[in-house]
Amino acid sequence: MTSPAIRILGISGSLRSGSFNTSALRAAIELAPEGVTIIEADISEIPLYNEDLKAKGWPPSVELFRQQIREADAILFVTPEYNYSVPGVLKNAIDWASRPPEQPFAGKPAAIMGASPGVIGTARAQYHLRQIAVFLDLKVLNKPEVMIGGAADRFDSAGKLTHEPTRDFVKSMLVALQDWTLKLK
Amino acid sequence: MTSPAIRILGISGSLRSGSFNTSALRAAIELAPEGVTIIEADISEIPLYNEDLKAKGWPPSVELFRQQIREADAILFVTPEYNYSVPGVLKNAIDWASRPPEQPFAGKPAAIMGASPGVIGTARAQYHLRQIAVFLDLKVLNKPEVMIGGAADRFDSAGKLTHEPTRDFVKSMLVALQDWTLKLK
Amino acid sequence: MTSPAIRILGISGSLRSGSFNTSALRAAIELAPEGVTIIEADISEIPLYNEDLKAKGWPPSVELFRQQIREADAILFVTPEYNYSVPGVLKNAIDWASRPPEQPFAGKPAAIMGASPGVIGTARAQYHLRQIAVFLDLKVLNKPEVMIGGAADRFDSAGKLTHEPTRDFVKSMLVALQDWTLKLK
Amino acid sequence: MTSPAIRILGISGSLRSGSFNTSALRAAIELAPEGVTIIEADISEIPLYNEDLKAKGWPPSVELFRQQIREADAILFVTPEYNYSVPGVLKNAIDWASRPPEQPFAGKPAAIMGASPGVIGTARAQYHLRQIAVFLDLKVLNKPEVMIGGAADRFDSAGKLTHEPTRDFVKSMLVALQDWTLKLK
Repeated sequence: MTSPAIRILGISGSLRSGSFNTSALRAAIELAPEGVTIIEADISEIPLYNEDLKAKGWPPSVELFRQQIREADAILFVTPEYNYSVPGVLKNAIDWASRPPEQPFAGKPAAIMGASPGVIGTARAQYHLRQIAVFLDLKVLNKPEVMIGGAADRFDSAGKLTHEPTRDFVKSMLVALQDWTLKLK
Repeated sequence: MTSPAIRILGISGSLRSGSFNTSALRAAIELAPEGVTIIEADISEIPLYNEDLKAKGWPPSVELFRQQIREADAILFVTPEYNYSVPGVLKNAIDWASRPPEQPFAGKPAAIMGASPGVIGTARAQYHLRQIAVFLDLKVLNKPEVMIGGAADRFDSAGKLTHEPTRDFVKSMLVALQDWTLKLK
Repeated sequence: MTSPAIRILGISGSLRSGSFNTSALRAAIELAPEGVTIIEADISEIPLYNEDLKAKGWPPSVELFRQQIREADAILFVTPEYNYSVPGVLKNAIDWASRPPEQPFAGKPAAIMGASPGVIGTARAQYHLRQIAVFLDLKVLNKPEVMIGGAADRFDSAGKLTHEPTRDFVKSMLVALQDWTLKLK
Repeated sequence: MTSPAIRILGISGSLRSGSFNTSALRAAIELAPEGVTIIEADISEIPLYNEDLKAKGWPPSVELFRQQIREADAILFVTPEYNYSVPGVLKNAIDWASRPPEQPFAGKPAAIMGASPGVIGTARAQYHLRQIAVFLDLKVLNKPEVMIGGAADRFDSAGKLTHEPTRDFVKSMLVALQDWTLKLK
């Protein structure tokens, strides 16, 4: 007997083409357990949030992003830490997506991972994102917390996550997210 | 004997034309004590942060913003709270401005204020911004903490801050920021 | 058909006999929906945490507290805010209870409420407690967030919560915690 | 010409006799630059905070602690992280010391350091302590942030901090705290 298939929307917080975090998201896509499909969101075209702009209608990039959130069974954030917090780029996408009337994140399971060159990794960004998730009513997985430090040594020059223990760790997090998502259905 | 003149860069975290926070910044400009000039930054043209874009050179809007930060004796953030944190728009501007080689915020005095329609105001955004300020090495004023709740009743329809106790409170904060800035010179 | 009975351990973060928070916990006990029983923990006899002391064996007050946590289906924290964070008294009880080998909070559903005389209420304490809960692996209810401001007007002189809308709000939170607990079983 | 002498109150957040953090505080005492004396506070006898108890008068341990804070030119917190936050023991001491009528921490310069066996060190505790410091009106040094990870390899069996780069780092922080204290006089 197999579990029902689940669909996860993966959101990278970095727009850089060689981003460790986008690479980590791609590793997650590759490592997804059976029954799990991870789709990659594109937040690069979302304009700066401005309520006056919203009053004219959802920009197409936001409309699509909101649609992807709605269709997802769970959300996976993969984010760098900038200035001890969540990147503005990621927060801006969340600010747009969460606007009324409908708040598409509400009630969905979620997980957070991040990669950084330094030691503390993205811990500070992750706890800020967890506070944001309270408002969004995302049910964020507590454990495992995936904070990939020393990223420069764990990805190869093509952006592939090559560090085996980290690959196993990402996999275990995806299994935990799958279980959590099925439990909350 | 008069104090040396100081120049403060005011940064609103909202792009909406009728923003309570931009209105609160304008109230601060009007209420500035003798010897204090507050300049209003414009972050509306700053693109989404992308290191690949930065590699091609600073966008003009960022160049100007960085120049204004460099020339300021102190920074005044006036920000709404979105999703229990700092708006992506404001964070994105900070992410750009803080990039190496030079980090223009470093060592400068700062203060935070915010306005919101609700009761808790912008408290959650302000504490996130304070953590960001540790990285930026901004010396943020501890008190008074200006959190303007029930904003809809404190500004008139033209955006003027009309609530007298709030005007006095903003003024007392600006005096405290002036003193703090002169002390740290 | 009735739901299975659930047992919640209520923990007040204040030791003061006339504490608004202990009063709020007692209101929750009184308002518990059918099928829910709330037990009140006593953390007043727990000594200051010291690993050297723990090495000699669990103090009886801690042993009992850990036993109550183990037997609970869910945890309800009712806490004041001291100095913009969780009271030391409550944190100390958590520090003892969470020590290995067994971590009794792990995996349990939880909710947080708090009362304070001021406006912002216990928001700052609650978000710190939510970060603590990530480590403890408590599944904390996102909503509703019960922050009872202006407490002096909502309780009578005998400590009874008399403000009807607040009573309804506490009740709705308890129903949400009951649902959440049954879902996670 | 020498700087005026300054007196720092050092507060360890751990009561364990072999505590890495108490050892780190002792290293700071030993490494204090010329003109700086660091006194070690004793918070082990401070009772659990209870306003009813306070109403009967300050406990002698609290009275002494408050006196030491009053006499200090600056405060140095040296704290472990328990459950992703400040230890209850340290928070409890702060909760007592900060009670009205007089708040002895107000306006004093401060610095935070911490040691832990793991990698992230005490980062999460330190940012919570920084938020607490906003209320206390402590002027906390932004940099350097001393987070001593892998503590088991940096202290010898007698508790001496033997890792030279860490000793230099602690020293540089103390020099920064000395400068900051003199600047704020």
